[in-house]
This record gives sequence, C-alpha cells and structure tokens, in this order.
Amino acid sequence: MLSKNKLKYIRSLELKKNRREEHAFLAEGPKLVGELLGHFPCRYLAATAEWMDAHPGIAADEVMRVTDEELARASLLKTPQQVLAVFGMCEEEPGADFASLVRGTLCLALDGVQDPGNLGTIVRLADWFGIEHIFCSPDTVDIYNPKAVQATMGAIARVRLHYVPLAMLIATLGEDTPVYGTFLDGENIYSRPLPTGGGLIVMGNEGKGISSEVGALVNRRIRIPNYPVGRATSESLNVAIATAIVCAEFRRQCDR
Amino acid sequence: MLSKNKLKYIRSLELKKNRREEHAFLAEGPKLVGELLGHFPCRYLAATAEWMDAHPGIAADEVMRVTDEELARASLLKTPQQVLAVFGMCEEEPGADFASLVRGTLCLALDGVQDPGNLGTIVRLADWFGIEHIFCSPDTVDIYNPKAVQATMGAIARVRLHYVPLAMLIATLGEDTPVYGTFLDGENIYSRPLPTGGGLIVMGNEGKGISSEVGALVNRRIRIPNYPVGRATSESLNVAIATAIVCAEFRRQCDR
Repeated sequence: MLSKNKLKYIRSLELKKNRREEHAFLAEGPKLVGELLGHFPCRYLAATAEWMDAHPGIAADEVMRVTDEELARASLLKTPQQVLAVFGMCEEEPGADFASLVRGTLCLALDGVQDPGNLGTIVRLADWFGIEHIFCSPDTVDIYNPKAVQATMGAIARVRLHYVPLAMLIATLGEDTPVYGTFLDGENIYSRPLPTGGGLIVMGNEGKGISSEVGALVNRRIRIPNYPVGRATSESLNVAIATAIVCAEFRRQCDR
Repeated sequence: MLSKNKLKYIRSLELKKNRREEHAFLAEGPKLVGELLGHFPCRYLAATAEWMDAHPGIAADEVMRVTDEELARASLLKTPQQVLAVFGMCEEEPGADFASLVRGTLCLALDGVQDPGNLGTIVRLADWFGIEHIFCSPDTVDIYNPKAVQATMGAIARVRLHYVPLAMLIATLGEDTPVYGTFLDGENIYSRPLPTGGGLIVMGNEGKGISSEVGALVNRRIRIPNYPVGRATSESLNVAIATAIVCAEFRRQCDR
C-alpha cells in the first residue's frame, strides 16, 4: 500500500529544490532502474508483483509491492512501467583536479543547456563515445531532473557531471589545452585533423548558443557543415544532435 | 477575444484523428510560425499585440489579436510564445514515383519511430543535411503532431514526409539501390566508403529497432562504433542521434 506521505515524497522529487534537500532522485522503468541499481544507493523501490517476482533480493532501504493503479499514481511517466525507484545522489568529490582531467582526456562542457531531454540524451551519447566527464555551467538544467534521468537510459551511472563556472574551469587549463566550441562561423570540422588526446568540447544553450564569456575562451571555433554547402536550410541543429556529430568525428579520428 | 469554439478547435488539433479530418495542424512561437508562413496556407493566427505590430499584413484566413492570458489558454506549450497558428497540410501528390526519387537522391526511411520529439528532430537534421524526402512506415508517429512540428523548428516546410509501407517501397527499388540500416552487429560505418549517389537509410523504432520484415530487405547493414571499441557502455544511441551521425558521415564523404 502506497501511503499518502510516500506519494507526496515521490512527487516532491520533481522539483530541484526538494531533490537537493533530500539528496535523492527518481528513476522509472525496468531498464533504467536495472542499470542504476548497484551504482546509486537505492532508498526506495516500488514495483508491481510481476517485476518483484522476477527480481528477488533487491538491495534497497525500502521495497514495496504495489498495484498498477498505485504505480500510476506515483509515476511521472505517461505510461508507467512496472517499477519506480528513489536513489541517493552521488556527491562531488571535494578537491577534484578538473584541469588535469581535461588535459588528459576528452571532456564535454555544456553552457546553459536548458532542456532535460537534451541533457539526458547528451549523457547517453557521451557514454557511447567514452566521454566520462561533463562540465555543466551552473545554469544548465539539473541532471537529476526526472526527464533528464529517463533520457540518459542509465548512462548517468557511468558519466560524471560537474556543475562549475565554465570560464573559471577553462582559465585553469593553460593555453595549450584545446577548447573547442561550435559556432555558425567556425571552421569546417572536417577541414583539419582533430587532436586525439585531452581537451574540452563546449556546447551552448538551445537558443542562444555559447555565452560570450565562455565563447571568448574557446581557442578552436568549429562548425558542422550543412549540405550542400550554402543551401538555404535550417539555421542550426538541436544541441544534442550537434554534440553527437562532433563527438563521433573526434572518435572516428582517434580510431584511425 | 478568443471564443470558446475557437479554443476548442485549436485544442482538438492535439489529436491525429481531428487533424486528419480538418487537414490542419498547429504551430507556435515566432520562429516556427515565421518559417511556416508562406509555405503552408495559414487558416488562423492568434498573436499578442506586440507580435502583430511587428508583423503587419499577415496572409491568413483569420487573424486575431489576443492577450497573453488568452494565448496561454490556447497554447500547448509550457511557455506560450506570442503567436500560435493553424496551417493547412500539404497533400501527397498522387502517383509520385518514389522509386526514382530514392534512386536519384539520398533519402531516409523511418520504421516505427514513436516519439514526436525524435521525429521532429530528424526532420530538422535531414534539412540540415540536404535530405528532402523521408519515408515513414504507417506506424511512425504523425509529423503533424504538435510536438513533432515544434521540434522541426520549421524544417517541415522544406522536407517532405511520405507515409508508405516501407517493405513495399524497398521492393520497387531494384537490387542495385543501396538500402542501409543500422544494426548493433552491422559493419563499422567508417570501414568502407559510402556511396555518394542515391539510396535509402533506414532507421528503426526507439525500443525495437528496425522490424524484421524491413530488416530482411536492407542490403547494407551498418553500425556506429562506440569508443573505445568493446567498452561496456550504453547499449544504443537515441534514434535521432544515430540518424544524425549516419547522415553526417554520408555528407562528409560526399564533400571530399
């Protein structure tokens, strides 16, 4: 039986303020919850009898068998999917040396990405392309937003997100660390070889692109060419799409 | 003044059944409406005084000045944006020779894509990459779904979508027309040159991928490699992301 208080607690996690206070976030569906169990401490799990019977011995602080109707009441999804869980957040390790990280390995930086679906999709593709760290400006949407969590499809268990002022981060990198940013007037990404070592790829806000403050610190301005070149076309690509094309090209060149 | 009947009409266009009956669809926001005006017949347009004053001489069957509150009541968006319009659909030309189209130019085929945001995003990126025709299986989500329309960001004015049984279409192409499909066990997309002429790129459903019926007709099975190869990672990419990476690679090779 799902109590009123529990229902209220679950639904409260829609709001960032409450998630931060509770250090907890919500995930739904067999695939996603399955991926997160073992990576994040599970505080609470509610599932249908069918899911429960197929998953004995779940390690969670509290486990509850619920009816489809109860699950539907708690769920934020249009089509509730058998299981819903509240996980504890991973905490940022204090004193992490972000500059060394970026100099040693290819990382992403997101400058004001607003849509939770875009953010989650970017985490998922970063995972695909072996990018383990994403730096987010403080005004980037919260990765623990339920829609963002769902869109990661579980990649949130493998990719670490760090919310930091990007200009401050870039200032610590030193001038020889490549900082890429996509701009409509940048250089064709295919015209020069990309580095196969560390560096930062900055992607901007859905409407406004990269902020002027961060843009001024980008030392390699790149562009995804449209086709045929010069044809009247959409002005831009969705930010997750652009991130994917850039990451795929970096990785294609690494594998040569 | 927005009448109750008008409000009911606008909101009714959320449903495919009503859109088909009315041959009409909804679009919102200055950028999107601006792009669609002139491409689709505008049946009805409601906008704030601010937008109206900046856009005199709008060619629409009916134009209405509304308050922010009235707009908010009609809008399907979380944040209503100054203008909302109902457009008439483009009708499919009867007797179009789809096989010749595919043999002459690179086209996309979507086999059961369900999420309207994914579909709209694919239309937007197809536009970016100069792909003018997308064939959709009949169970693919309707491109005139308001969320799909919004995600196209106006590209729906330039890219044509054709809802046809894909197996029937592919059967008419002849064996020497390349039909690409992405599969987890396909060949690395970077390992062999891609053709620079016509052909079809088939992309599948979000959860199930390409149907077995259509998959059996694909003559070039390809795969986007993850990085580093063989690393445990997300099982798959979002369908719009995968479509973007494949299209970008086709176009990169065309431009060499």
